[in-house]
Amino acid sequence: MEVELKEMLDDLLSLRQSLSDPSLHASIDKLQSRVDHLTHLAKSVPVRRSKVKDMSSEVVDSNPYSRLMALQRMGIVENYERIREFSVAIVGIGGVGSVAAEMLTRCGIGRLLLYDYDKVELANMNRLFFRPEQVGMTKTDAAVQTLSDINPDVVLESYTLNITTVQGFETFMSSLKNKTFRPTKEGSGVDLVLSCVDNYEARMVVNQACNELNQTWMESGVSEDAVSGHIQLLIPGETACFACAPPLVVASGVDERTLKREGVCAASLPTTMGVVAGLLVQNTLKFLLKFGHVSPYLGYSSLKDFFPTMAMKPNPQCSNVACLERQKEYLLAKPARDAAAKAKMEAEAKVTVADVPLHTDNEWNISVVDDNEPESTPGTSSDALPEGLTHELPIADEVLKSPASGAPDMAIDDLEDLRRQLDALNAN
Amino acid sequence: MEVELKEMLDDLLSLRQSLSDPSLHASIDKLQSRVDHLTHLAKSVPVRRSKVKDMSSEVVDSNPYSRLMALQRMGIVENYERIREFSVAIVGIGGVGSVAAEMLTRCGIGRLLLYDYDKVELANMNRLFFRPEQVGMTKTDAAVQTLSDINPDVVLESYTLNITTVQGFETFMSSLKNKTFRPTKEGSGVDLVLSCVDNYEARMVVNQACNELNQTWMESGVSEDAVSGHIQLLIPGETACFACAPPLVVASGVDERTLKREGVCAASLPTTMGVVAGLLVQNTLKFLLKFGHVSPYLGYSSLKDFFPTMAMKPNPQCSNVACLERQKEYLLAKPARDAAAKAKMEAEAKVTVADVPLHTDNEWNISVVDDNEPESTPGTSSDALPEGLTHELPIADEVLKSPASGAPDMAIDDLEDLRRQLDALNAN
Repeated sequence: MEVELKEMLDDLLSLRQSLSDPSLHASIDKLQSRVDHLTHLAKSVPVRRSKVKDMSSEVVDSNPYSRLMALQRMGIVENYERIREFSVAIVGIGGVGSVAAEMLTRCGIGRLLLYDYDKVELANMNRLFFRPEQVGMTKTDAAVQTLSDINPDVVLESYTLNITTVQGFETFMSSLKNKTFRPTKEGSGVDLVLSCVDNYEARMVVNQACNELNQTWMESGVSEDAVSGHIQLLIPGETACFACAPPLVVASGVDERTLKREGVCAASLPTTMGVVAGLLVQNTLKFLLKFGHVSPYLGYSSLKDFFPTMAMKPNPQCSNVACLERQKEYLLAKPARDAAAKAKMEAEAKVTVADVPLHTDNEWNISVVDDNEPESTPGTSSDALPEGLTHELPIADEVLKSPASGAPDMAIDDLEDLRRQLDALNAN
Repeated sequence: MEVELKEMLDDLLSLRQSLSDPSLHASIDKLQSRVDHLTHLAKSVPVRRSKVKDMSSEVVDSNPYSRLMALQRMGIVENYERIREFSVAIVGIGGVGSVAAEMLTRCGIGRLLLYDYDKVELANMNRLFFRPEQVGMTKTDAAVQTLSDINPDVVLESYTLNITTVQGFETFMSSLKNKTFRPTKEGSGVDLVLSCVDNYEARMVVNQACNELNQTWMESGVSEDAVSGHIQLLIPGETACFACAPPLVVASGVDERTLKREGVCAASLPTTMGVVAGLLVQNTLKFLLKFGHVSPYLGYSSLKDFFPTMAMKPNPQCSNVACLERQKEYLLAKPARDAAAKAKMEAEAKVTVADVPLHTDNEWNISVVDDNEPESTPGTSSDALPEGLTHELPIADEVLKSPASGAPDMAIDDLEDLRRQLDALNAN
């Protein structure tokens, strides 16, 4: 629109020069000021917020980061501003991926890499994020438009491509490897990959890339009937990869593409997708900023508000070669990991010896009772059985106590176990 | 901008009439066509989607309701289009309320009533929904702007007021009572009130209004440290009201306003607020469209991904007079409720007698085993004890069986219990 207004101004100037009657110049002046005013109007919409150099914790209405930096004062996060160092790749900018991207953008993530090949349709309007005026744009372009308006501090990289094609996969891999944003970073160029795709084939491609790059990632999904979903953390070699436990339909050899019928679409709800995106990005924040417990798997079954959790170990017979390599590396690194864990525990034990009581005031006279104290049967050990009964198997404590052994024995057992597992992997 | 362009066109016409030299008319024509073009440009941004008369389940990219109507085909919802009949009031258009409003708008809710008195600030940008260019607008105006663009089918009513003032409360009450949207509706003019406010005082005002109007509502909240939240269903007389179990700080007589310190702000996260809004609107959809289990209370503790649930009965000593009246009505309606439940159960029992097997194919040869079947100890009843042991207390089944009684006795017990509870209420 600004181009058109500039051309109009030029036309008015040449018209003025052609006018023989100077009394008409006032009319031209008036028209000129009208064009100036319109130019001003066109420029002032939309007002963009300016970039912010450092995240401030100052409590003023104009600070977009005050409520995030408050996480430090509340003792939840040690150093919130570290979020600016992190790069997150989001594959699939649909009902879950777009909301995840918006959440990370509003949290002030350093850099977002967005992958999708689809276009925005009116049929997407029952989920959050995209707006009707973006219909026809690619999802990546529409997302960059909205996200850069919301937070110009975030570095946005948009990849309009299909990762399941040969060319797409190559670009996907090289973009994940690129370390220009933080050259000193170890491993790949991103801290986490979030898979927000809607089909098995694309998930297997993300799985392949992450196994090859030894890249930690998180999976997400929503059921076809729109009322359940899940998120899952995948650390190559340490947890099950996506190929370690394939879905039943895949194990049965059915081609997923034959399942989708023309004219039939899956249901979706902004609620389920919003919850799944929220749980996914919450797990991402906990993982990146090191607070709380990062869930290995969290399900959401909305009909009964049931949230199952579980953990899955890698499958030593996994069909993915890169997964088997990562498993081998993970097993070999076990002694170093154990030593580091021991050192950390000892360091923490020293810190937790505090001199001051936890609560100095006790208005409600609350006292703490030991959970393990026997309640009302003095003189009876919890191991004792009523007369006439004996234990068929040794009780748990006895198993742990015998054979009379110390740390050295355990270490040898561990190593032998390790060799056995390695042999099993090499046999594949 | 369209007004300015129209004025410019008028100026050009009068200039044309003042021109003595007809050779200059061509220049005016050119300027006119430029203004026409600009008018067209100004009108076409943004492209608004047109209203939709009926919700179609047709699977085409241009249908904004196809993925919602698919909930019927998937067997989740019986009649999705009923959503257009419902009115939902949202009090507090902040981090939770605004997202809840957007979700309901995208779901195609019939009518939304929005209440808030605050303005949009840059400090709100760490939560979803509001955009930097809306800074300075009232939250209600900004919300109506965004929501009407997203879905012009939703009837939006915006109330820029503080419900905790005398005038604000009066307008709040009369807006809830207004039945012009659906004159045949029983009770108040809205189907559900969602409380998304951030303080105790405002919650107590919503509680008061809903108790007076016998209006079912849902509460929501997010903790000051941003990492937990909850939703709660409140049915006057049937569940605890918000005054039935006041928070400890209120019971201790502390004025909440003295707790907020100058220059100190609570933390907030788009993730936690997005999850709470999603759970709140999911519960709303289940309540309105009658599917799944409507949770009476659902907590979200993000550090451990823990989701506690519970149910709270009303307090017969509640300090809220309207709550006590609703409790009395609820107890009096018990016989009618029991009869209706019994009739419903009998009707359902008739329907579930199906002639066809549930699964006709059984590719994996799965067979069903009775949970109650004794596993490997034939001849031993589960009540039997090892030799030498006796039951100290009667076992559960015996308690239920004795005294030898039928339905009539139970009914008399129930009525006496009912009278005792009524007496307790009248004593207040």
